[in-house]
Amino acid sequence: MLKFFFGPGSCAMASHLALEEAGARYEAVKLDLTKGEQRKPEYLKINPKARVPALATERGVLTENPAILAFIAQTHPEKQLAPLDDAFAFGKLQAFNAYLCATVHVAHAHGRRGYRWADEQSSFDDMKRKVPETMAACFGLIEDDMLEGPWLMGQQFTVADCYLFTIESWLKSDGVDIARFPKVADHFMRMSARPSVQRVLPLHDR
Amino acid sequence: MLKFFFGPGSCAMASHLALEEAGARYEAVKLDLTKGEQRKPEYLKINPKARVPALATERGVLTENPAILAFIAQTHPEKQLAPLDDAFAFGKLQAFNAYLCATVHVAHAHGRRGYRWADEQSSFDDMKRKVPETMAACFGLIEDDMLEGPWLMGQQFTVADCYLFTIESWLKSDGVDIARFPKVADHFMRMSARPSVQRVLPLHDR
Repeated sequence: MLKFFFGPGSCAMASHLALEEAGARYEAVKLDLTKGEQRKPEYLKINPKARVPALATERGVLTENPAILAFIAQTHPEKQLAPLDDAFAFGKLQAFNAYLCATVHVAHAHGRRGYRWADEQSSFDDMKRKVPETMAACFGLIEDDMLEGPWLMGQQFTVADCYLFTIESWLKSDGVDIARFPKVADHFMRMSARPSVQRVLPLHDR
Repeated sequence: MLKFFFGPGSCAMASHLALEEAGARYEAVKLDLTKGEQRKPEYLKINPKARVPALATERGVLTENPAILAFIAQTHPEKQLAPLDDAFAFGKLQAFNAYLCATVHVAHAHGRRGYRWADEQSSFDDMKRKVPETMAACFGLIEDDMLEGPWLMGQQFTVADCYLFTIESWLKSDGVDIARFPKVADHFMRMSARPSVQRVLPLHDR
Protein backbone atom coordinates (compact mmCIF):
# COMPACT_ATOMS: atom_id res chain seq x y z
CA MET A 1 0.00 0.00 0.00
CA LEU A 2 1.12 3.56 -0.66
CA LYS A 3 2.47 5.54 2.28
CA PHE A 4 2.09 9.30 2.06
CA PHE A 5 4.21 11.67 4.15
CA PHE A 6 2.90 15.19 4.70
CA GLY A 7 3.13 18.21 6.95
CA PRO A 8 -0.09 19.98 7.97
CA GLY A 9 -0.75 23.08 5.90
CA SER A 10 2.24 22.44 3.64
CA CYS A 11 2.22 22.09 -0.14
CA ALA A 12 1.83 18.34 0.45
CA MET A 13 -1.89 19.04 0.59
CA ALA A 14 -1.86 19.08 -3.22
CA SER A 15 -0.82 15.43 -3.50
CA HIS A 16 -2.97 14.54 -0.50
CA LEU A 17 -6.06 15.87 -2.28
CA ALA A 18 -5.13 14.04 -5.48
CA LEU A 19 -4.84 10.75 -3.59
CA GLU A 20 -8.37 11.30 -2.30
CA GLU A 21 -9.69 12.29 -5.72
CA ALA A 22 -8.15 9.13 -7.17
CA GLY A 23 -9.67 6.94 -4.48
CA ALA A 24 -6.17 5.60 -3.84
CA ARG A 25 -5.47 3.14 -1.05
CA TYR A 26 -2.83 4.80 1.10
CA GLU A 27 -1.70 5.41 4.62
CA ALA A 28 -1.07 9.05 5.58
CA VAL A 29 1.86 9.80 7.89
CA LYS A 30 1.88 13.24 9.47
CA LEU A 31 5.18 14.98 10.21
CA ASP A 32 5.38 17.93 12.58
CA LEU A 33 7.46 20.31 10.48
CA THR A 34 7.56 22.87 13.31
CA LYS A 35 9.46 20.29 15.38
CA GLY A 36 11.82 19.47 12.49
CA GLU A 37 10.58 15.90 12.06
CA GLN A 38 11.43 16.17 8.37
CA ARG A 39 15.12 16.37 9.30
CA LYS A 40 15.21 13.26 11.51
CA PRO A 41 17.42 10.41 10.29
CA GLU A 42 14.51 8.01 9.74
CA TYR A 43 12.77 10.49 7.44
CA LEU A 44 15.96 11.43 5.60
CA LYS A 45 16.13 7.78 4.52
CA ILE A 46 12.78 8.33 2.84
CA ASN A 47 13.51 11.79 1.46
CA PRO A 48 17.08 13.10 1.83
CA LYS A 49 15.83 16.53 0.77
CA ALA A 50 14.07 16.83 4.16
CA ARG A 51 10.89 18.04 2.51
CA VAL A 52 7.31 16.96 2.04
CA PRO A 53 5.46 15.50 0.23
CA ALA A 54 6.92 12.03 -0.23
CA LEU A 55 5.03 9.02 -1.53
CA ALA A 56 6.51 5.61 -0.69
CA THR A 57 5.49 3.00 -3.25
CA GLU A 58 6.46 -0.67 -3.54
CA ARG A 59 9.07 0.43 -6.11
CA GLY A 60 10.60 3.23 -4.05
CA VAL A 61 9.88 6.81 -3.04
CA LEU A 62 8.58 9.65 -5.20
CA THR A 63 8.95 13.30 -4.18
CA GLU A 64 7.88 16.71 -5.53
CA ASN A 65 4.24 17.56 -6.17
CA PRO A 66 4.40 17.71 -9.98
CA ALA A 67 5.87 14.19 -10.09
CA ILE A 68 3.50 12.71 -7.51
CA LEU A 69 0.47 14.36 -9.11
CA ALA A 70 1.28 12.93 -12.55
CA PHE A 71 2.01 9.52 -11.00
CA ILE A 72 -1.37 9.46 -9.23
CA ALA A 73 -3.15 10.39 -12.47
CA GLN A 74 -1.22 7.79 -14.49
CA THR A 75 -1.82 4.97 -12.01
CA HIS A 76 -5.56 5.73 -11.72
CA PRO A 77 -6.39 6.31 -15.39
CA GLU A 78 -10.07 5.48 -14.89
CA LYS A 79 -10.43 8.65 -12.80
CA GLN A 80 -9.32 10.86 -15.72
CA LEU A 81 -7.33 13.22 -13.52
CA ALA A 82 -5.04 14.31 -16.37
CA PRO A 83 -5.18 14.26 -20.19
CA LEU A 84 -2.95 11.18 -20.34
CA ASP A 85 -3.37 10.40 -24.04
CA ASP A 86 -2.63 13.89 -25.33
CA ALA A 87 1.02 14.94 -25.03
CA PHE A 88 0.26 18.61 -25.68
CA ALA A 89 -2.56 18.87 -23.13
CA PHE A 90 -0.48 16.88 -20.65
CA GLY A 91 2.33 19.36 -21.30
CA LYS A 92 0.01 22.28 -20.51
CA LEU A 93 -0.93 20.64 -17.21
CA GLN A 94 2.73 20.01 -16.43
CA ALA A 95 3.71 23.57 -17.33
CA PHE A 96 1.14 24.84 -14.86
CA ASN A 97 2.35 22.53 -12.09
CA ALA A 98 5.95 23.57 -12.80
CA TYR A 99 4.93 27.23 -12.55
CA LEU A 100 3.28 26.57 -9.19
CA CYS A 101 6.29 24.75 -7.76
CA ALA A 102 9.11 26.86 -9.20
CA THR A 103 7.58 30.34 -9.17
CA VAL A 104 4.43 30.64 -7.03
CA HIS A 105 5.43 28.38 -4.14
CA VAL A 106 8.89 29.95 -4.19
CA ALA A 107 7.40 33.46 -4.01
CA HIS A 108 5.31 32.39 -1.00
CA ALA A 109 8.27 30.73 0.73
CA HIS A 110 10.17 34.03 0.85
CA GLY A 111 7.69 35.22 3.47
CA ARG A 112 8.69 32.59 6.00
CA ARG A 113 11.78 30.73 4.84
CA GLY A 114 14.13 33.46 3.70
CA TYR A 115 16.96 31.63 5.50
CA ARG A 116 17.06 29.25 2.55
CA TRP A 117 18.53 31.99 0.37
CA ALA A 118 20.08 34.59 2.70
CA ASP A 119 21.55 35.01 6.18
CA GLU A 120 20.62 38.47 7.47
CA GLN A 121 17.44 39.40 9.33
CA SER A 122 17.20 42.58 7.24
CA SER A 123 17.03 40.42 4.09
CA PHE A 124 14.32 38.22 5.58
CA ASP A 125 12.28 41.33 6.43
CA ASP A 126 12.79 42.72 2.94
CA MET A 127 11.71 39.43 1.37
CA LYS A 128 8.66 39.20 3.60
CA ARG A 129 7.54 42.70 2.65
CA LYS A 130 7.57 41.77 -1.04
CA VAL A 131 5.39 38.64 -0.78
CA PRO A 132 2.01 40.36 -1.29
CA GLU A 133 3.37 41.93 -4.49
CA THR A 134 4.92 38.78 -5.94
CA MET A 135 1.99 36.54 -5.03
CA ALA A 136 -0.49 39.03 -6.50
CA ALA A 137 1.57 39.17 -9.71
CA CYS A 138 1.53 35.36 -9.95
CA PHE A 139 -2.22 35.18 -9.42
CA GLY A 140 -2.75 37.97 -11.93
CA LEU A 141 -1.15 35.73 -14.55
CA ILE A 142 -3.10 32.69 -13.35
CA GLU A 143 -6.35 34.68 -13.58
CA ASP A 144 -5.67 36.21 -16.99
CA ASP A 145 -3.70 33.56 -18.85
CA MET A 146 -3.89 30.14 -17.24
CA LEU A 147 -7.13 29.33 -15.42
CA GLU A 148 -9.68 28.45 -18.10
CA GLY A 149 -12.53 27.93 -15.64
CA PRO A 150 -14.31 26.44 -13.97
CA TRP A 151 -11.29 24.16 -13.57
CA LEU A 152 -7.75 24.92 -14.64
CA MET A 153 -8.10 23.06 -17.94
CA GLY A 154 -11.75 23.92 -18.53
CA GLN A 155 -14.46 21.32 -18.01
CA GLN A 156 -12.10 18.51 -16.99
CA PHE A 157 -11.05 18.44 -13.35
CA THR A 158 -7.37 17.49 -13.06
CA VAL A 159 -4.71 17.01 -10.40
CA ALA A 160 -3.54 20.57 -11.13
CA ASP A 161 -6.74 21.83 -9.49
CA CYS A 162 -5.63 20.19 -6.25
CA TYR A 163 -2.32 22.00 -6.47
CA LEU A 164 -3.88 25.35 -7.37
CA PHE A 165 -6.34 25.11 -4.45
CA THR A 166 -3.48 24.41 -2.04
CA ILE A 167 -1.68 27.60 -3.00
CA GLU A 168 -4.91 29.62 -3.17
CA SER A 169 -5.40 28.68 0.48
CA TRP A 170 -2.19 30.57 1.34
CA LEU A 171 -3.23 33.88 -0.23
CA LYS A 172 -4.89 35.32 2.86
CA SER A 173 -1.82 34.83 5.06
CA ASP A 174 0.30 36.21 2.22
CA GLY A 175 -1.64 39.46 2.35
CA VAL A 176 -3.48 39.02 -0.95
CA ASP A 177 -7.26 39.38 -1.24
CA ILE A 178 -8.47 36.52 -3.42
CA ALA A 179 -11.49 38.60 -4.44
CA ARG A 180 -9.18 40.60 -6.73
CA PHE A 181 -9.13 37.53 -8.97
CA PRO A 182 -12.72 36.47 -9.73
CA LYS A 183 -11.93 33.23 -11.58
CA VAL A 184 -9.45 32.22 -8.88
CA ALA A 185 -11.98 33.04 -6.14
CA ASP A 186 -14.63 30.96 -7.95
CA HIS A 187 -12.15 28.08 -8.29
CA PHE A 188 -11.36 28.25 -4.58
CA MET A 189 -15.08 28.11 -3.68
CA ARG A 190 -15.78 25.19 -6.02
CA MET A 191 -12.81 23.27 -4.65
CA SER A 192 -13.88 23.96 -1.06
CA ALA A 193 -17.14 22.11 -1.73
CA ARG A 194 -15.47 18.91 -2.97
CA PRO A 195 -15.57 15.90 -0.64
CA SER A 196 -11.81 15.42 -1.05
CA VAL A 197 -11.16 18.88 0.38
CA GLN A 198 -13.63 18.38 3.21
CA ARG A 199 -11.88 15.14 4.17
CA VAL A 200 -8.31 16.45 3.85
CA LEU A 201 -8.55 20.00 5.23
CA PRO A 202 -9.10 18.96 8.88
CA LEU A 203 -5.94 16.84 8.71
CA HIS A 204 -4.00 19.95 7.69
CA ASP A 205 -5.08 22.10 10.65
CA ARG A 206 -2.04 23.54 12.36
CA MET B 1 7.11 23.07 -37.45
CA LEU B 2 8.05 23.67 -33.83
CA LYS B 3 9.40 27.11 -32.94
CA PHE B 4 11.72 27.24 -29.95
CA PHE B 5 12.39 30.49 -28.06
CA PHE B 6 15.54 30.67 -25.97
CA GLY B 7 18.00 33.06 -24.39
CA PRO B 8 21.72 32.31 -24.68
CA GLY B 9 23.13 30.71 -21.55
CA SER B 10 19.71 30.48 -19.92
CA CYS B 11 18.00 27.35 -18.60
CA ALA B 12 16.38 27.07 -22.04
CA MET B 13 19.53 25.18 -23.03
CA ALA B 14 17.98 22.12 -21.38
CA SER B 15 15.05 21.96 -23.79
CA HIS B 16 17.30 23.05 -26.66
CA LEU B 17 19.56 20.03 -26.08
CA ALA B 18 16.57 17.72 -25.83
CA LEU B 19 15.24 18.94 -29.18
CA GLU B 20 18.61 18.06 -30.70
CA GLU B 21 18.75 14.67 -28.97
CA ALA B 22 15.26 13.92 -30.31
CA GLY B 23 16.20 14.93 -33.83
CA ALA B 24 13.17 17.23 -33.78
CA ARG B 25 12.39 19.55 -36.67
CA TYR B 26 12.31 23.03 -35.18
CA GLU B 27 13.26 26.63 -35.72
CA ALA B 28 15.26 28.26 -32.93
CA VAL B 29 14.51 31.91 -32.13
CA LYS B 30 17.09 33.69 -30.00
CA LEU B 31 16.01 36.42 -27.56
CA ASP B 32 18.49 38.86 -26.08
CA LEU B 33 17.51 38.68 -22.43
CA THR B 34 20.02 41.39 -21.53
CA LYS B 35 18.01 43.79 -23.72
CA GLY B 36 14.71 42.66 -22.21
CA GLU B 37 13.39 41.11 -25.43
CA GLN B 38 11.44 38.63 -23.30
CA ARG B 39 9.29 41.52 -22.03
CA LYS B 40 8.36 42.91 -25.46
CA PRO B 41 4.66 42.77 -26.35
CA GLU B 42 5.17 40.34 -29.23
CA TYR B 43 6.90 37.83 -26.97
CA LEU B 44 4.39 38.29 -24.12
CA LYS B 45 1.77 37.00 -26.57
CA ILE B 46 3.81 33.80 -26.75
CA ASN B 47 4.69 33.59 -23.07
CA PRO B 48 3.02 36.09 -20.73
CA LYS B 49 5.44 35.01 -18.00
CA ALA B 50 8.24 36.81 -19.91
CA ARG B 51 10.53 33.84 -19.51
CA VAL B 52 12.31 31.28 -21.65
CA PRO B 53 12.10 28.55 -22.80
CA ALA B 54 8.89 28.51 -24.82
CA LEU B 55 7.99 25.96 -27.48
CA ALA B 56 5.35 26.99 -29.99
CA THR B 57 3.56 23.98 -31.46
CA GLU B 58 0.67 23.77 -33.89
CA ARG B 59 -1.63 23.30 -30.86
CA GLY B 60 -0.30 26.22 -28.83
CA VAL B 61 2.66 27.16 -26.66
CA LEU B 62 4.32 25.08 -23.96
CA THR B 63 6.53 26.64 -21.31
CA GLU B 64 8.70 25.43 -18.38
CA ASN B 65 11.55 22.98 -18.90
CA PRO B 66 9.99 19.99 -17.09
CA ALA B 67 6.88 20.23 -19.30
CA ILE B 68 8.78 20.77 -22.55
CA LEU B 69 11.26 17.98 -21.78
CA ALA B 70 8.49 15.45 -21.14
CA PHE B 71 6.65 16.63 -24.27
CA ILE B 72 9.74 16.14 -26.42
CA ALA B 73 10.25 12.64 -25.02
CA GLN B 74 6.58 11.72 -25.49
CA THR B 75 6.41 13.00 -29.07
CA HIS B 76 9.64 11.21 -30.08
CA PRO B 77 9.10 7.84 -28.39
CA GLU B 78 11.48 6.05 -30.76
CA LYS B 79 14.37 7.98 -29.21
CA GLN B 80 13.65 6.57 -25.74
CA LEU B 81 14.44 9.83 -23.97
CA ALA B 82 12.27 8.95 -20.95
CA PRO B 83 10.79 5.76 -19.41
CA LEU B 84 7.39 6.48 -20.95
CA ASP B 85 5.76 3.13 -20.18
CA ASP B 86 6.70 2.99 -16.50
CA ALA B 87 4.79 5.46 -14.30
CA PHE B 88 7.16 5.03 -11.36
CA ALA B 89 10.36 5.53 -13.37
CA PHE B 90 8.74 8.44 -15.20
CA GLY B 91 7.86 9.85 -11.78
CA LYS B 92 11.51 9.61 -10.68
CA LEU B 93 12.56 11.52 -13.78
CA GLN B 94 9.90 14.13 -13.16
CA ALA B 95 10.85 14.47 -9.49
CA PHE B 96 14.41 15.20 -10.55
CA ASN B 97 13.34 17.80 -13.11
CA ALA B 98 11.06 19.41 -10.52
CA TYR B 99 13.97 19.56 -8.07
CA LEU B 100 16.13 21.26 -10.70
CA CYS B 101 13.50 23.86 -11.57
CA ALA B 102 12.10 24.60 -8.10
CA THR B 103 15.20 24.27 -5.91
CA VAL B 104 18.48 24.24 -7.85
CA HIS B 105 17.66 26.83 -10.51
CA VAL B 106 16.02 28.98 -7.81
CA ALA B 107 19.17 28.79 -5.65
CA HIS B 108 21.28 29.88 -8.64
CA ALA B 109 18.91 32.73 -9.54
CA HIS B 110 19.47 34.37 -6.15
CA GLY B 111 22.97 35.25 -7.29
CA ARG B 112 21.79 37.50 -10.10
CA ARG B 113 18.04 38.05 -9.87
CA GLY B 114 17.46 38.85 -6.23
CA TYR B 115 15.10 41.64 -7.33
CA ARG B 116 12.50 38.98 -7.97
CA TRP B 117 12.11 38.43 -4.23
CA ALA B 118 13.41 41.58 -2.49
CA ASP B 119 13.99 45.30 -3.05
CA GLU B 120 17.14 46.32 -1.16
CA GLN B 121 20.70 46.15 -2.48
CA SER B 122 21.84 44.76 0.90
CA SER B 123 19.45 41.83 0.41
CA PHE B 124 20.77 41.17 -3.10
CA ASP B 125 24.34 41.15 -1.77
CA ASP B 126 23.36 38.80 1.06
CA MET B 127 21.63 36.43 -1.38
CA LYS B 128 24.58 36.50 -3.74
CA ARG B 129 26.99 35.56 -0.95
CA LYS B 130 24.96 32.48 -0.11
CA VAL B 131 24.86 31.00 -3.63
CA PRO B 132 28.06 28.92 -3.37
CA GLU B 133 26.69 27.32 -0.19
CA THR B 134 23.19 26.56 -1.51
CA MET B 135 24.39 25.33 -4.90
CA ALA B 136 27.00 23.08 -3.26
CA ALA B 137 24.30 21.66 -0.94
CA CYS B 138 22.08 20.90 -3.95
CA PHE B 139 24.88 19.19 -5.82
CA GLY B 140 25.84 17.23 -2.71
CA LEU B 141 22.35 15.71 -2.77
CA ILE B 142 22.51 15.14 -6.52
CA GLU B 143 25.88 13.39 -6.14
CA ASP B 144 24.89 11.23 -3.17
CA ASP B 145 21.22 10.47 -3.74
CA MET B 146 20.08 11.19 -7.28
CA LEU B 147 22.67 10.69 -10.00
CA GLU B 148 22.94 6.95 -10.61
CA GLY B 149 25.67 7.24 -13.21
CA PRO B 150 26.79 7.38 -15.87
CA TRP B 151 23.45 9.09 -16.66
CA LEU B 152 20.93 10.34 -14.16
CA MET B 153 18.81 7.20 -14.40
CA GLY B 154 21.68 4.78 -14.93
CA GLN B 155 22.35 3.30 -18.35
CA GLN B 156 19.48 5.05 -20.10
CA PHE B 157 20.13 8.59 -21.29
CA THR B 158 17.07 10.79 -20.71
CA VAL B 159 15.96 14.38 -21.16
CA ALA B 160 16.85 14.96 -17.49
CA ASP B 161 20.52 14.65 -18.46
CA CYS B 162 20.09 17.67 -20.71
CA TYR B 163 18.66 19.64 -17.81
CA LEU B 164 21.32 18.50 -15.36
CA PHE B 165 24.11 19.43 -17.78
CA THR B 166 22.64 22.91 -18.22
CA ILE B 167 22.77 23.61 -14.49
CA GLU B 168 26.17 21.93 -14.08
CA SER B 169 27.47 24.47 -16.59
CA TRP B 170 26.57 27.26 -14.13
CA LEU B 171 28.57 25.88 -11.19
CA LYS B 172 31.82 27.64 -12.01
CA SER B 173 30.24 31.09 -12.10
CA ASP B 174 28.35 30.20 -8.92
CA GLY B 175 31.65 29.64 -7.11
CA VAL B 176 31.38 25.88 -6.81
CA ASP B 177 34.18 23.55 -7.93
CA ILE B 178 32.53 20.69 -9.82
CA ALA B 179 35.49 18.44 -8.90
CA ARG B 180 34.04 18.19 -5.38
CA PHE B 181 31.35 15.97 -6.90
CA PRO B 182 33.02 13.16 -8.89
CA LYS B 183 29.88 11.65 -10.41
CA VAL B 184 28.61 15.09 -11.37
CA ALA B 185 31.99 15.98 -12.88
CA ASP B 186 31.98 12.73 -14.88
CA HIS B 187 28.44 13.45 -16.07
CA PHE B 188 29.46 16.93 -17.20
CA MET B 189 32.41 15.52 -19.19
CA ARG B 190 30.31 12.82 -20.85
CA MET B 191 27.65 15.33 -21.78
CA SER B 192 30.24 17.74 -23.18
CA ALA B 193 31.26 15.09 -25.70
CA ARG B 194 27.75 14.57 -27.10
CA PRO B 195 27.05 15.98 -30.56
CA SER B 196 23.91 17.71 -29.27
CA VAL B 197 25.99 19.72 -26.81
CA GLN B 198 28.61 20.54 -29.41
CA ARG B 199 25.91 21.85 -31.74
CA VAL B 200 23.97 23.81 -29.10
CA LEU B 201 26.72 25.30 -26.90
CA PRO B 202 27.99 27.79 -29.51
CA LEU B 203 24.44 29.14 -29.90
CA HIS B 204 24.40 29.88 -26.16
CA ASP B 205 27.57 31.96 -26.09
CA ARG B 206 26.91 35.28 -24.44
